[in-house]
Amino acid sequence: MRKTVFELIREHKAAVQETPCIVVDTETAKKNICRMQEAVSACGCKLRPHIKTHKIPYFARLQLAAGAEGITCAKVSEAEVMAAGGVEDIFIAYPMVGEFRIHRALELQKRVKRLILAVDSLEGAAALSRSAGEAGLTCEVRLEVDTGARRTGVTRGHVLELAGQIAALPHLNLTGIYTFKSLVLHGCPTEDNKAAAVEEAELMSGMAASLRTRGLPIREVSAGSTPTGLQVARTGLVTEVRPGTYIFGDWMLTKENCAAVEDIAVRLYAMVVSTPAPDYAVLDGGTKTFPMDIPLDTPPFLYPGYAIPIGGDGKPDENLQLRRMNEEHGILTAKNGRTGLRVGQVLELIPIHVCTAVNMQNSVFVFEDGVLRRMPVEARGMLV
Amino acid sequence: MRKTVFELIREHKAAVQETPCIVVDTETAKKNICRMQEAVSACGCKLRPHIKTHKIPYFARLQLAAGAEGITCAKVSEAEVMAAGGVEDIFIAYPMVGEFRIHRALELQKRVKRLILAVDSLEGAAALSRSAGEAGLTCEVRLEVDTGARRTGVTRGHVLELAGQIAALPHLNLTGIYTFKSLVLHGCPTEDNKAAAVEEAELMSGMAASLRTRGLPIREVSAGSTPTGLQVARTGLVTEVRPGTYIFGDWMLTKENCAAVEDIAVRLYAMVVSTPAPDYAVLDGGTKTFPMDIPLDTPPFLYPGYAIPIGGDGKPDENLQLRRMNEEHGILTAKNGRTGLRVGQVLELIPIHVCTAVNMQNSVFVFEDGVLRRMPVEARGMLV
Repeated sequence: MRKTVFELIREHKAAVQETPCIVVDTETAKKNICRMQEAVSACGCKLRPHIKTHKIPYFARLQLAAGAEGITCAKVSEAEVMAAGGVEDIFIAYPMVGEFRIHRALELQKRVKRLILAVDSLEGAAALSRSAGEAGLTCEVRLEVDTGARRTGVTRGHVLELAGQIAALPHLNLTGIYTFKSLVLHGCPTEDNKAAAVEEAELMSGMAASLRTRGLPIREVSAGSTPTGLQVARTGLVTEVRPGTYIFGDWMLTKENCAAVEDIAVRLYAMVVSTPAPDYAVLDGGTKTFPMDIPLDTPPFLYPGYAIPIGGDGKPDENLQLRRMNEEHGILTAKNGRTGLRVGQVLELIPIHVCTAVNMQNSVFVFEDGVLRRMPVEARGMLV
Repeated sequence: MRKTVFELIREHKAAVQETPCIVVDTETAKKNICRMQEAVSACGCKLRPHIKTHKIPYFARLQLAAGAEGITCAKVSEAEVMAAGGVEDIFIAYPMVGEFRIHRALELQKRVKRLILAVDSLEGAAALSRSAGEAGLTCEVRLEVDTGARRTGVTRGHVLELAGQIAALPHLNLTGIYTFKSLVLHGCPTEDNKAAAVEEAELMSGMAASLRTRGLPIREVSAGSTPTGLQVARTGLVTEVRPGTYIFGDWMLTKENCAAVEDIAVRLYAMVVSTPAPDYAVLDGGTKTFPMDIPLDTPPFLYPGYAIPIGGDGKPDENLQLRRMNEEHGILTAKNGRTGLRVGQVLELIPIHVCTAVNMQNSVFVFEDGVLRRMPVEARGMLV
């Protein structure tokens, strides 16, 4: 049976070249890609993975090769990187607002087969319509609707009116609606992923039907993140799902019962640089390496630390906790009062939230065909 | 009187080119540089600023031109960037552990006038000694001692023994001791900066004296961050201080009474992309733009949000709060139930912690001589 690079490193048959770093086991990632693709395709649903997790054209191409319809990005700068990496069908699932951004999006549209933009306000849609007209282009757009996350997305009571107004604007072709219904991050968690997914799909399907009865040709109904995506697809009520994190997995997903620890395709490695006392030790990575965007002690999911240390047996170390950090210092404490760590030792850790962990690395180490090679995270830090 | 770029932007006489972004008012930064330099120099103390805040050789050169002795970095990869940018005297104030790192440090030493490395364990020092010997070099090193932060740094009871062991190693030249005594971040805040600074200086001075009586020629006693640096210098008990954040300032420093709002040389700008309801609006930056390393509701300093929105009058907006984020979404809520924001509006915000905010930007916009120009954050994401 194939061994993961994490196992080989534990057995000293492979070595981490520098720390702190992220290592990806490509075979595990490919397995995750294929499992999601096959399951979603079996429902007659399209898969348009969000690249926010890997931020690397290489992995987007793997997702497309497995059968993905296209990809999803959050920012035009991410989409530009993906297009340069050979991706031809891109949905920027974020309200396209701001002249500088619209200009870049219109330029990008000329270079790819299909670019889908997002709107959630009349002001935003009107500005996009004007700029598209000036550029002699027509933009395919989708309307973002809010299904409970209370971030971007028009609220449900205003969908019909706004969709009608957008459809009436020149140079825009309103072809779909989309949503993101968070399970966890917005203070309104649902313990039952399946029930949440069914609700998400029914809301979206109902809105699409309602829009169609008003004469709006809504062809695409897009929903579903990693926790809900497959269940959303299984309802048969949507045409597309957009999970992202499934490719690598992280500790948060295991807490949401969406991934087994064996499915997690990434590890953080960090070196013990200091052991001043028996009860604590310091890693060479702090807040610049281990993201703090998932607060530790906030229900519903509680985490023992900002990353999960893994022991020599491949299982979470029940003694060590990473609960205090500065930029370059990760302070590991021992529940039993003795870390047992020595200076120079390299620790394996599972990230709590892989997307923000990858965003902090200029490059990751990718293990494939027995070789660890460095791969730049080309779309990291793309904020525009 | 000179206007800051922030005032010019408020008055529509300058414009932000893209969002989310960071803008630096260079004149304010220069004022901060000179004020600290003059005050520290007046005490007969050397200033070795930590570049973790700006991460840009240009600002390091301004600090050196103002009279700084050299600079401080945390990582060898940061030091490499600064050396390439013309800096010749660098202290890497972080235990030099790991063969890959030691190798790079020794290579760097050949290229600069003075490189000072740090040790805090016999294992680390012995490995450095061996590698230096193999490279035919002698390394100037300082011993990090813990004065209460409980992160890196040998604990006080072990200083004498360890310093003696390190001094006995070949190819190492132990010339100093250093410490970082946090005021805020470690759960042991001190409300009186001056008292904390005096304690820090007395501890370090006492240890240095003790080491000298054992025949160890400790020439450099280095301490002091931005909150304590100047007070530490004024004791006359140390030879060098290493503040970092003072160059730009942030909201945390104002809470520590170490900077006035007018001294803060940076702003974050973000665009409102969505206003789905009167009581909330969404900014085009989330956790990839606004760091979360300062938890909001943790004593002693409480923050109203992950950044402080500034109103048209240049004062903190008492109504708007940024308390909920995803990677690309910053959700602003209104205390009075009405944000009053419109789609496309650009908001000015003060960062809570500027160092981690700068680390997330590939480049910042620097305002100098009436022009806003883009400057890469060359040492961002340098983790090794």
